[in-house]
Amino acid sequence: MRLATRGVESHAPPNRTPHDPPAQPNTMKTKAVFYHAGCPVCQAAEQNLAAALDPARYEVEIVHLGQDRSRLAEAEQAGVKSVPALVLGGAAYHINHGAGLDALR
Amino acid sequence: MRLATRGVESHAPPNRTPHDPPAQPNTMKTKAVFYHAGCPVCQAAEQNLAAALDPARYEVEIVHLGQDRSRLAEAEQAGVKSVPALVLGGAAYHINHGAGLDALR
Repeated sequence: MRLATRGVESHAPPNRTPHDPPAQPNTMKTKAVFYHAGCPVCQAAEQNLAAALDPARYEVEIVHLGQDRSRLAEAEQAGVKSVPALVLGGAAYHINHGAGLDALR
Repeated sequence: MRLATRGVESHAPPNRTPHDPPAQPNTMKTKAVFYHAGCPVCQAAEQNLAAALDPARYEVEIVHLGQDRSRLAEAEQAGVKSVPALVLGGAAYHINHGAGLDALR
């Protein structure tokens, strides 16, 4: 006895439709943190440079160290010495110079 | 006399298929220029930060000022004082510090 319908059904993927979105694409993004202190140098860099990162690959967090001093230690550990700075892929990039971290304590 | 086929044909867009790419999307991109001099600080910034820009919005040109000194004047006019630097949207962003432009003449 041949079960012809079984052969046909085996080509259909189980439990999903062609329009299902891929599973959780956001979990693949690299975290980028832009540290600033509200100064004009910082604001220009935030609006121009931090906003220019590829949103498909980077999830950008903006941290105002002047208002959120509890994150100064974390920034220093990441290698930040002045603001504005962008921590990206484990490296700290100091962008121009607004203020040294010591001015924010 | 009715020309029935004309009515049907009028629904078909002339001279293009549904798979034609949109016309010249690259003309809308903002130019970004990453100036460097081949130093380790420059190379890290190029591979990490310049490569992180959104390719949908920015066309990134990499200029090695140590090898292409003819572009030093252009870089200075854009506000570049040291490398690596990224010129983006009319502003120069100095990223960390590899070398001053004077060292490249």
